[in-house]
Parts: sequence; structure tokens; C-alpha cells
Amino acid sequence: MSEPLEAKRQEFRIYLRKIRSYEEALGVLYWDLRTGAPKKGADMRSEVIGSLSGEMFRLSVAPQMEEFLNYFEQSEIREQLSEVDRVIVRECRKEFDRSRKIPPERYEEYVVLTSQAETVWEEAKKKSDFAMFKPYLEKVVAFNREFIGLWGYEGHPYNTLLDMYEPGMTVDKLDRVFGELREKLVPLSAAIRERGDAPDTSMLRQTFDKDRQKQFSLMMLGQLGYDFDAGRLDESVHPFATGLNPGDVRITTRYLENDVVSALFGTIHECGHALYEQNISTDLYGTPLCTGTSMGIHESQSRFWENMIGRSRPFWQRYFPDLKKLYPEQLANADAESFYRAINVTKPSLIRIEADELTYNLHIMIRYELEKALFGGELAVEDLPRAWNAKYAEYLGIEPSNDGEGVLQDVHWSSGGFGYFPSYALGNMYAAQFMQAMRRELGDIDALVGEGRFAPIKDWLVDKIYRYGKLQTPGEIVSRVTGEELNPSYLIAYLEEKYRDIYKL
Amino acid sequence: MSEPLEAKRQEFRIYLRKIRSYEEALGVLYWDLRTGAPKKGADMRSEVIGSLSGEMFRLSVAPQMEEFLNYFEQSEIREQLSEVDRVIVRECRKEFDRSRKIPPERYEEYVVLTSQAETVWEEAKKKSDFAMFKPYLEKVVAFNREFIGLWGYEGHPYNTLLDMYEPGMTVDKLDRVFGELREKLVPLSAAIRERGDAPDTSMLRQTFDKDRQKQFSLMMLGQLGYDFDAGRLDESVHPFATGLNPGDVRITTRYLENDVVSALFGTIHECGHALYEQNISTDLYGTPLCTGTSMGIHESQSRFWENMIGRSRPFWQRYFPDLKKLYPEQLANADAESFYRAINVTKPSLIRIEADELTYNLHIMIRYELEKALFGGELAVEDLPRAWNAKYAEYLGIEPSNDGEGVLQDVHWSSGGFGYFPSYALGNMYAAQFMQAMRRELGDIDALVGEGRFAPIKDWLVDKIYRYGKLQTPGEIVSRVTGEELNPSYLIAYLEEKYRDIYKL
Repeated sequence: MSEPLEAKRQEFRIYLRKIRSYEEALGVLYWDLRTGAPKKGADMRSEVIGSLSGEMFRLSVAPQMEEFLNYFEQSEIREQLSEVDRVIVRECRKEFDRSRKIPPERYEEYVVLTSQAETVWEEAKKKSDFAMFKPYLEKVVAFNREFIGLWGYEGHPYNTLLDMYEPGMTVDKLDRVFGELREKLVPLSAAIRERGDAPDTSMLRQTFDKDRQKQFSLMMLGQLGYDFDAGRLDESVHPFATGLNPGDVRITTRYLENDVVSALFGTIHECGHALYEQNISTDLYGTPLCTGTSMGIHESQSRFWENMIGRSRPFWQRYFPDLKKLYPEQLANADAESFYRAINVTKPSLIRIEADELTYNLHIMIRYELEKALFGGELAVEDLPRAWNAKYAEYLGIEPSNDGEGVLQDVHWSSGGFGYFPSYALGNMYAAQFMQAMRRELGDIDALVGEGRFAPIKDWLVDKIYRYGKLQTPGEIVSRVTGEELNPSYLIAYLEEKYRDIYKL
Repeated sequence: MSEPLEAKRQEFRIYLRKIRSYEEALGVLYWDLRTGAPKKGADMRSEVIGSLSGEMFRLSVAPQMEEFLNYFEQSEIREQLSEVDRVIVRECRKEFDRSRKIPPERYEEYVVLTSQAETVWEEAKKKSDFAMFKPYLEKVVAFNREFIGLWGYEGHPYNTLLDMYEPGMTVDKLDRVFGELREKLVPLSAAIRERGDAPDTSMLRQTFDKDRQKQFSLMMLGQLGYDFDAGRLDESVHPFATGLNPGDVRITTRYLENDVVSALFGTIHECGHALYEQNISTDLYGTPLCTGTSMGIHESQSRFWENMIGRSRPFWQRYFPDLKKLYPEQLANADAESFYRAINVTKPSLIRIEADELTYNLHIMIRYELEKALFGGELAVEDLPRAWNAKYAEYLGIEPSNDGEGVLQDVHWSSGGFGYFPSYALGNMYAAQFMQAMRRELGDIDALVGEGRFAPIKDWLVDKIYRYGKLQTPGEIVSRVTGEELNPSYLIAYLEEKYRDIYKL
């Protein structure tokens, strides 16, 4: 590499680290707000967040950024760059163009709108009053249509939104994979509710001391390989994981006294996200590539650890005795098998975030189809409640009695997060596909889990996925690791096998 | 006010709020580092802190700041400003000049030096090796002498350093007040150790469950009027208070299992700082005046609440029964009076931070005299250990057996904090002087404390001191509240009365 190029490269890295500094500071501020910041300080804290966010945005669209990008994109320069640097330039260009194509005054209006829309949504959800939320949602959708116009799109307008969360994902691909899922999972879910032998879940709903739940969660984090020198566990209303930097990846959970597994599975889920962020390769530190590659791949890790490991039979064969020691009275009449069946109960329900592993995918599919229709121009905002309810009847066999437990249940749309929902189901599909590859290469995974030996599993994931951070796209990772494109049949097979066994079908 | 002036005024306020945003963000980052941030994230967190500090500094010395100041300092503009705005301009000018007079490259060298010096000091303290620390300390002192030359000084070079922590404080004033203190407190301390009836302190050194200590600390914060909606209590190695904004003033303490009062008095001490910051007038919010006016006045509040309230007889007449309920076995043979005497034991000791209320002032006086001599050119760094030990022998009647428990004990000098120490003793003097004024105006303070009625006391302090923030100088506050200048005789009278009673002299 030539000397001036190397100097420029270093200058660029420093510039990117400065942006990253704002990102990390903002991460700490958000974490703090959600884990116990006193309420009277919130107004001034918002001002701080606004100020720092503004500065970070300014840096990311500054003329200096454009100069860097133009320089490194020259073909004779580009070919001298390392792979890491090339991907950094590509990702920064993508972000830069996305940000610069929106007129700043329109973007500011949009930020104000979504902030109002979230507040109105909260109220509307409480009152089950879609009419109240409708004008705001219409504006949010209109803004997103306008942005898609400015950004451009290929194929379907919704593709541009999908790409923000899952680079490379398209309506064509999702139609295909969701089609396969629907074809198999809708009948499976129906068969279970018609002929299945439902597990007894009464043991789960007793009183379980919170301190002991915490003790069990902490123990489990240690078992799974979460690095406490590079993270901490706190409490918050909604569990989350936040990677401030790879040496500081925090998770939170929420202890419910009347539910023995909610906090535990929340912890394991966030642990999956955290293992990803804690194990990114050091040569990506301080760069924009030092994070998970997409929402879908991230979600594949939280769901892999939560569901495929944490809700598996060998896991509870190993850990049920430990749990029983903590709650000898409550679990007196339960054993590993009955507990395993109880925590895997599946039942059509109205609320996505309370859904089980099987029906969860159907909740997502509904949202995907509605969003696609909205941005394809086939559905108007005012028709959403009707369309929502019809799909719930079709896929899950139940219908919301009001919009609060229907179309108003999720926060995503009020904040403009269209295109995000598919990540959750993609995560499930990726996870099953990775598991298949892992079984091929590591052999008897169930035996490892049954012995509480998670290190080989974690190490495999680090080697195959985590260390790459954002250096490879989701598509590149899936192809390299599994030898094929995204394929929903692994998830289908996994769910068929697991649930037919549990429900004795 | 004219329209363009009003527009400029608002523009300036926005500029200052932006600087404040960085300050608050940095406050959260420091709080986080000290209350449990995972250690592996520390390096990248330092980079974030460096980046944000740099940006904040840049804003505070930017040409735009100078333009604002030049504009508002024009006499026809200045006379249209409110008092608040005038003081803001005055304080910003002071800061601006102080920062601008140091060449940036010299300042950067200094920052690097003090960072190294702190690391070396830590090691040197452990090894009691002054020679190891000496070359660093010499450089830190030389830098401070150079800065004083650039800043200028009146009377004594050390005055410029004193003014940084206690605006308006001078060697002349301190010589006078410390002279009076020394004249009375050195003989009092000597008389106590020669003829005093020493309290039995064995009850304090048993095993005291930490959760119960925490419970007692939290209860006490509530009693004293600490607002938990505008703060929180955490744990850290060294207790501290941090006012992120008036709606978020956090405190920390440290629970020692073998000491029943250490955490409690740490909590009450920091609560005093926090009450000050929580109760600043809303019209100062978001301005540089929204903080305590000086280190000395701040320390007066922590010490007022910790010592004059928390270590008083009526306080323990009221709360000892509550404490005894938590530790019935350990305190079985104690009563309020014996406990009161035990927690007020005084004894010459070598370590400042472990010193009692009476001898603490002597520790400060020693440091003041040495700093004054260093910057007056009468003492060389290499002669510090000898001078230190001689003064301990003279004022406290004891001598360190090594430099680790002598001249190397405090962190302040390694980080260049010359001029800071006097604040602690000033705090004691101010506190006693305020107490005198409070007794004049509120009547029987002891009766209020004995009933646990702290609201009138807090309200008086809010009205007289807290709400002003930095709008008045320490000198202005003391004169307005007490009707006279700083006067050490109140502290002397308070200590004479308290300790002669306890030691039956």
C-alpha cells in the first residue's frame, strides 16, 4: 500500500472511530434510561440524546465523509484495499447515500412525527381506538413511501425497506419461504389443536422467588459462555441486549414472580445476541463492521440459544434437577420430561410477543403480508384492522375482539419500523439451517447439551458466524456455513418433529 | 430587551446547552465506569470519553464562543442583560480565558503526563517509594507553575490555583483562618489525647449484614429529603455524588461488613452534595450556573449533613433505636449515648480520609501549607517527604513510618489538583457558620433533629443556598446568609463544645 493511501486510510479509520464514540455514548445513555435512570432527569436526558445523535448524524453525512468515500472508491485505490477496508467503504457508502437522499427538513419532520405517533399509539392501544392512531399511521406510511421514492427500489417498493434490516432480502424470496412455512405450519398448528395431547402447564404458574430466578439466570449465563468481564445482567421492563463495544455487551431481563421461565428464556435469548457481539474478531474493533450483520442473523442467534438449545429435551434433562433444587415445593410433582413438555406448549394466541415457537412464525407472516400490501399499494391504512383480523382467523383460527389485542399491539409501525418484522421469522429459519450444518460437523449436539457442554457449540458459532461481524452479508454467511441459500425446510422439519413428539401426533 | 439581542441571547443559551449535553453524557459515562461497567470494555470506553471531552473542550474555546462573549460584554448590551445572563457571561469568560491562555499542545502534554503520573503514583504508594514518583511530581508542579505564569496571579502564585476551586479565595485569607484553627485545634487535640476520657468503640467493629446497612442507608436518605425520583443509590469503591442534571443526582456508597457506620456516613455525606444539586432553581436549568458554586460550599453541605446532623447527639437519640432493631445482638450493650460517643472518637492518625471531624482540619492545614510553599518557591518537591513528616509531628504528634502512609497517600497531586485540599476545611468552617445562622433563624435545631424533622432544615438551606446554584460566589453567599465574612470561630466553638463534652474535659 502506498504511503499517502495508508495515511488516508488511517485518517478515515480515526474519523469512523469518532462516529463510533457517539454511538457508544448513546448506547450507554439508552441502557441507563431503561435500567433505572430517575424519571425527573428524563427531559434533560432526551436533550442530551438529541444533541449527540444530531452530531453523529452530521459526521456521517459531512462533506468530509463524501471525500473519503470518493477517494477510496477510485478503482486504482480500491484494488489496493484489504477486504475489511473495501467492505467498510461499501457499507459507509450505503449509509451515506441513504441519509443524503432525504432532505434534512423532511427527515426532521419525520422524526417529530414518529415521536408523536409513538405517544398516540400508546394511548390508542390502551383504548383499542384505531381511529385515533389512523391519521398518524397514514402519515408515517406516506413518509416511508416518499423515502422509498427518493432511495429508489428494485422489483417491489417494499424491498428497499426489507434491505435496511436484512441486506439482500426481497419480496420474491420471502414469498417463497413464507409460502412454504405457511403450507406446512398452518396445518400442523391446526392438527395440534384438534388432535394433540396437550401438556399440563399448571406447574409453571405458581409463585417463584425472584432472587432464585436471578440466581438461576446468572448460573445459566455462565454455563452458556457469556463473559461477565465483558458484560453484565440488569433488569428492565422489556429485556434487551446492547453491544456498547465487544468488551461491554450488556443484557437485561425481567423477573415475574408467577412465571418460572419467562425471565430465564428472556436471559438466554439476550445471551444469544450477546454471544454474537462479544465474539467479533478484534481486527474489526472500532470499525462500522463491528456488529451483527443483520437483524435476521442476530435473531437467529437469540432464537437458536433460547429455543433450539434452551427449550430442548436434553437441556432440561441436564438442568431440571438444578431448577428443582431451587423450587422443591413448586416442582415437587414435575420431572424433566413433564417440564420440557410444559414449556413447549403451543396454542394459537393473539399477542405476538407471548406466542410460542411454532405459532410465532404465523404472527410474523401476517405482518409481512400486510406490510407488503401496504407498500405495494394494494392495501390502505384504514383497511388494516379488517385485513389483520381476517388473517388471524385464516392462519391461527382466532380473531381479536378489539384492535388493542389486534392491529395496535406492536410498537413497530408507530416508529416507522416497516420491514423489521420478517427478521424474527428469518431468525428462526436461519437458526434451524445453522443447526443442521452444526449437526453435520459436530455430531451429536443433543449429547453435548445433555452434558451441559456448550463450549464446542459456541466455538463453532464463533468460528462460522460471530467473528465475521458485518464483514459478510447474511446471504454470504448462510451460503458459506450451510452450503445453500436460505431454506425454510429445516425449520419446518424441526418444528414438525418437535411438536409431533410433544403432542403425540 | 431588543429583538436582535433576545435572538442572540437565545442562540447563546442553545450553544451552552449543547456544551452541557456533552458534560451530562460524560457524567453518565463516568458514573457507569465507577458503578460496574465490565472491565474489558474500559479501553474503548476511554476512547469514547476522550472523544466527547475533546469535542466539549473545542466548543468551549471555539471562535463562536468568543464572538458571543465579545457581543454580550459590550457595555450597552451588558446593561440590558438579566442578572443570570450577566453571571453566565462572566463565568464563561473566566473559563474561556483560562482555557485559551494555555497552548493546546502544552495542555495535551499535560493531560498525558498526569495520566502517567496517576499510574506511577498508584505503584509508588504501594511500594512507599517517593523517589519513583518524584520526577513525575516535579513535572506536574512545573507545568502548574508554567500555567500560573500564563494565567497570571495577584499577590501569591498559589492564589490562582485556589481560585479554581474556591473563587475569590487567597493565601492571605487562608493564612488568617487556618492560623486561628491551628491555634485552637492543635492544643484541643493534644488535651484530648492527654487527659480525655476516651469512648469505648468496640461495638462498632463487629459483623454487620450489608443488606441491613443498605436498608438503613436508604431509609435515612428518605428521612433527609433526598428525592429518589431525581436520583438513585448505588455502590462503588469510593463513594461519590454526581449531578447529571437536577432531576438526576446520583450517589454511591460502600458497605463494609466490619463497620456499621462507614457506609451510612458515606451515604449522608453524599446526600448533602445531592440535596444541593437537586434543589437548584429551575431558571438556572441548562445553564453553566446549574451546579454548586464552589468546592468549599459543596463540601460545607456534605459535612453539614454528615457531621453536624448525622454525628450529633439528638440524631442518635432519634435513630439509635432503629439501628438497634437491625442489629439487636451486636448493639445489645449499647445505648444512644454510648453509640454517639463511639462514633465521635477523635485520635491523631496518619491517613486523611480516615480522620475524624476534629483532626481532619489539621490534615488539610498541612497540605495547604506545603502547597503554598511549593508554589511560593520556598519548598522543592524533593523536600516534600521531610516537610510532610515534620508537620505531622508538630500538629498531630505522630509521624508516618513510610511515605505510603505519608506524603504519597493522596491521589490529588498526581492529577495536578493543587489548590483543592483547602476546600475540605473551608467546608467545615462554612458549615459551622451556616449552622449558627440557621439556629438564629430557625431556633432549636437540636429539637428538630431529635424528632427527625429535617424538612425545615433542608428548606432553609434550599432557600438560602441551594437554589442559587452558581449565581452567587462563595463570598457573596456566606455574607448574605450569615451577615459576615468567612469566620473560623464558629467551627472552633462547635468543635470545642462537642469534644470537651464527649471527652469530659
